[in-house]
Amino acid sequence: MSSRTNVSCLHEAKRVAIFGGTHGNEMSGITLVNMWIQNSAEIERNGLLIKPFISNPRAVEKCSRYIDTDLNRAFTPENLSAPDVEGLLYEVQRAKEINRMFGPKGSSDAYDVIFDLHNTTSNMGCTLILESSTDLFNLQMVHYIKKAMAPHTCSVLLNEHPQLKYSTTRSVAKHSVGLEVGPQPQGVLRSNVFESMRTILKHALDFIELFNSGVEFPPCTVDVFRVQERMDYPRDTNGNITAMVHPHLQDCDWEPLNRGDPVFLTFDGRTILYEGANTVYPTFINEAAYYEKQQAFTTTCREMLAANAIRKAFN
Amino acid sequence: MSSRTNVSCLHEAKRVAIFGGTHGNEMSGITLVNMWIQNSAEIERNGLLIKPFISNPRAVEKCSRYIDTDLNRAFTPENLSAPDVEGLLYEVQRAKEINRMFGPKGSSDAYDVIFDLHNTTSNMGCTLILESSTDLFNLQMVHYIKKAMAPHTCSVLLNEHPQLKYSTTRSVAKHSVGLEVGPQPQGVLRSNVFESMRTILKHALDFIELFNSGVEFPPCTVDVFRVQERMDYPRDTNGNITAMVHPHLQDCDWEPLNRGDPVFLTFDGRTILYEGANTVYPTFINEAAYYEKQQAFTTTCREMLAANAIRKAFN
Repeated sequence: MSSRTNVSCLHEAKRVAIFGGTHGNEMSGITLVNMWIQNSAEIERNGLLIKPFISNPRAVEKCSRYIDTDLNRAFTPENLSAPDVEGLLYEVQRAKEINRMFGPKGSSDAYDVIFDLHNTTSNMGCTLILESSTDLFNLQMVHYIKKAMAPHTCSVLLNEHPQLKYSTTRSVAKHSVGLEVGPQPQGVLRSNVFESMRTILKHALDFIELFNSGVEFPPCTVDVFRVQERMDYPRDTNGNITAMVHPHLQDCDWEPLNRGDPVFLTFDGRTILYEGANTVYPTFINEAAYYEKQQAFTTTCREMLAANAIRKAFN
Repeated sequence: MSSRTNVSCLHEAKRVAIFGGTHGNEMSGITLVNMWIQNSAEIERNGLLIKPFISNPRAVEKCSRYIDTDLNRAFTPENLSAPDVEGLLYEVQRAKEINRMFGPKGSSDAYDVIFDLHNTTSNMGCTLILESSTDLFNLQMVHYIKKAMAPHTCSVLLNEHPQLKYSTTRSVAKHSVGLEVGPQPQGVLRSNVFESMRTILKHALDFIELFNSGVEFPPCTVDVFRVQERMDYPRDTNGNITAMVHPHLQDCDWEPLNRGDPVFLTFDGRTILYEGANTVYPTFINEAAYYEKQQAFTTTCREMLAANAIRKAFN
């Protein structure tokens, strides 16, 4: 079997959107997208239609995560098929609009790629978020980005969990990529976070341009962190939080957590240890927006994904 | 002249309040105050009435800075004397209530001391905020706290500016002390910030108990940073921000800034230099809540304040 037979031929990616402000208080993505709406020279690529877009403008105006409900959980079949009646939640209306503009989700009319730019208060550094372990285009793209970013790290979070996966804004595209950079407080623009995000987008668009030009990308492997479990803060019988993320865990996103390691510190000074049987890699540690989701951190396991060689299908 | 003649005799401090949640998304103060409301053992001191109090409960519930307007700017004579009519802004109503409970501001009935617990997204560490350079009780108290905290730093910000001073929640007390600890993102509780705040409160209450017991505190000097000027972000003609805090300034609260040092980085990569004639000490650098106040940082100058010896007046 010649190496040629192992090359997967994929459709060209012609239409790409870059979303900022899916959460209205995550400033780096919002600022980049607004900048590119004013002047797109930096994101123009040969033969590509690239659309920078503010996905939740009312939340951006208020500098709050959302108006009525989290837009990044709103792209469910129920919401997208809801009739256009008065009194729909703002983000449900908006999800339907975005689905009309960039989808419909799951159809051949959908945009090829959507990058959705997010910031986190967690110390996650640069993180690409994928929703499928079998999307060769995305796997090759994140492999390209990781190589281009070296020696700086760019982690890959794989949110392919049967229960914990959620209906993201970017999910209307054929290939959806979340970009999460932190730490950055809500409502703050930090130059280091802004510049990291900008660099990743540059490499991502370069990859798409190269792919479209016919370049073949050889087989590769990608080191990913697969979502496993959400861990809540300890609470009393009234549901109030009774402990904080332990100082030994705070800011240690992506570092191994073993059975017996400290995870929480109660307000009265008691340490709570991790009781899971296996080593996990926590992430989204102490993210501001996840208090309301009852989530102190997410555990992940490390996994190596293999991707076929790819090139553009000529048809 | 004997040393006794230089001792200022001050009124005993019998009633002390500890406010959390003047800003509803500053979690360390809110969590401490809620904890002390449930169990006050830790803050009890001989002969002292100590009242932990959530000052903006509706903002705390929403985890937002305020509902209608910033409570920590609302204690103006106009607001406090506004008639109790329908349709008052929530924080104006609340200011009037707090003034009735802990004031009236400027009267002999007012609480002796109010500590107001705040968090900042800026890298300010532990900061005590005073509003008067001549309040001997407060100067001696912050001197005591600074000594007790050593070798850890506790900075003192003196907000005694003719224009930039504002009408704080704590200003209803005879002696008002702001406590600002960071960095901590809005909506996040960090154990290190929480514990620092708790330690400072312990020392502050110890000081008051000692003072009330008749201990004389010798003359002292206090190194303070006096508020000078608010610096806005660079903006375009539409009022939109065009630059970020420069990476060389970001997180460098309290460090000297000299003419010619970088302060901003424009989105197109140009560095903007500091043009002031004198060395200043910036603080509240890139604080999330100050974007709406058009404030990228505040400059301060360093000053040494001298305080007389004090002891309790026996009358």
